[in-house]
Amino acid sequence: MVTQSDIRAAYARIAPHIRSTPLLEAASPAHGAAPISLKLEFLQHTGSFKPRGAFNNLLTRAAPAAGCATASGGNHGIAVAHAAARLGVRARIFVPEIAPAVKVAKIRAQGAEVVVEGALYDDARALCDAYVRDSGALSIHAFDSPETIAGQGTVALEWEQDLARQSGAPLDTVLVAVGGGGLIAGIAAWFKGRVKIIAVEPEGSRAMHSALFAGRPVDVPVQSIAGDSLGARRVGDLVFAIAREAGVEGVLVTDAAIRDAQKALWRDFCIIAEPGGAAAYAALLSGAYKAAAGERVGVLLCGGNANLATLGPELLQETP
Amino acid sequence: MVTQSDIRAAYARIAPHIRSTPLLEAASPAHGAAPISLKLEFLQHTGSFKPRGAFNNLLTRAAPAAGCATASGGNHGIAVAHAAARLGVRARIFVPEIAPAVKVAKIRAQGAEVVVEGALYDDARALCDAYVRDSGALSIHAFDSPETIAGQGTVALEWEQDLARQSGAPLDTVLVAVGGGGLIAGIAAWFKGRVKIIAVEPEGSRAMHSALFAGRPVDVPVQSIAGDSLGARRVGDLVFAIAREAGVEGVLVTDAAIRDAQKALWRDFCIIAEPGGAAAYAALLSGAYKAAAGERVGVLLCGGNANLATLGPELLQETP
Repeated sequence: MVTQSDIRAAYARIAPHIRSTPLLEAASPAHGAAPISLKLEFLQHTGSFKPRGAFNNLLTRAAPAAGCATASGGNHGIAVAHAAARLGVRARIFVPEIAPAVKVAKIRAQGAEVVVEGALYDDARALCDAYVRDSGALSIHAFDSPETIAGQGTVALEWEQDLARQSGAPLDTVLVAVGGGGLIAGIAAWFKGRVKIIAVEPEGSRAMHSALFAGRPVDVPVQSIAGDSLGARRVGDLVFAIAREAGVEGVLVTDAAIRDAQKALWRDFCIIAEPGGAAAYAALLSGAYKAAAGERVGVLLCGGNANLATLGPELLQETP
Repeated sequence: MVTQSDIRAAYARIAPHIRSTPLLEAASPAHGAAPISLKLEFLQHTGSFKPRGAFNNLLTRAAPAAGCATASGGNHGIAVAHAAARLGVRARIFVPEIAPAVKVAKIRAQGAEVVVEGALYDDARALCDAYVRDSGALSIHAFDSPETIAGQGTVALEWEQDLARQSGAPLDTVLVAVGGGGLIAGIAAWFKGRVKIIAVEPEGSRAMHSALFAGRPVDVPVQSIAGDSLGARRVGDLVFAIAREAGVEGVLVTDAAIRDAQKALWRDFCIIAEPGGAAAYAALLSGAYKAAAGERVGVLLCGGNANLATLGPELLQETP
């Protein structure tokens, strides 16, 4: 398991390399007059929380001359490439052919070796596994490793610490988008027993929801506009064990609710969130999660790597 | 003149109505390893700092039954409409025909009466003045009134207070974009004698620069991509007196530098800034303002009301 102490150690390790991302107190149309606490993690290096876990891996586990490797066409791949470059470690990123162009470009921009091969994520993953076996490169898991989970958990540590420092009320509830579950596992490990933790997933990509229902990780189909960041086929075993022990609850949001949340974030805050980054806010706005009067709700805005060219005429023509 | 005490009083007045906008500490490629302090004021209600001054006017000066009025096709008009709506005051906004569509739509969305008439700003202004004379409506100046300046100055108070609360180093220098100058006058009134204050203007819209050179406000031509927010023909008399007394210095940035700063903010922070909102960062990135080693620089990101549809293929196709 991952403990608060692991997360504190991770934070000490990665703090010089990451941004401490700010909080915004804001009234939300979906939650009366009580201010919600928005954690602006899309302002993190590379546009998502992923560098926290990537740096924690590379600062904990020695990489051989072959460097590190991972399979990802998304935010994890960008973050591993970024962290490796900053630490002077070689990185080879295996990217499936379906990966979104903006994210692949961002991986390349970090200077990593990029292998675009294999139709789907699992194909890229198999190629990466073979490369790791042959080369001895350090494999960095996107979600289901203690180092990754402890790194992502620093988001919660930082959030709680900053609220206290700013004399903000502590959170009753935190809404977190879930893909493979590394982020929510880290947050659950930190807040366990003190804060209600809500896993938000698209209706069409519900690995955690199905796992909580089945009592174990199970395979699910993936079909959602947030699929490029939340589209894991199943949550990790370690992730699931931590989430279950912390009493994580799940809610589902439609793709339309995610798009509406993206629009609302732009209209009301001039914030661009990618679909996965807007999902947690969508749970509040759409009523998928109904907060009680006076409940102190935290919403994690975890990713900003939107493709501005395809955000669609709706968002583009909205009064910003 | 406007004093620190005026700004403290304004803050007490408007605090329930505005967002306390967060700070982000970040290394900047343009300034070595020393972190700069970014004030994320584009997260303010309506997407710019303008509600601070608008609320301070409406909470200081009683509006008659006719309500309030102003001439603006931009962020000031949006902010007056917003503040009036929140306080239950009628608002009539006189908008020139050249005003950008996204901003006019945002004024309408606040529920104000909108009069789109007159080719240029001065024409809308004349219509507004006539209406104020006839109706007795409360006129709210966009920059050259003590209430407006004291309201905008709360940005500086909040910045200094939050840095202290977060144990951040105090600022040596602050970079602020200038249109008519209400914002920089408020900031100068707060930081006078303690922080170096740099007025950043587009080369093609340099009302403060020319005023500092001439020793008095003078008319200038306006031609810049930031013209819809920074395009004042001359700075205010009160603005100028405050700025000169505080020793404000001016630097100019090209439109290309502004566009580059918008790109850099998107690439490195997933932040969308409108041209006027990116101008201060452009001064640092382009070298128009050269900070000394170890100098603690603050950059105010003052507006996010970009037109996503016209940000152009360059920004849209950048790896975000």
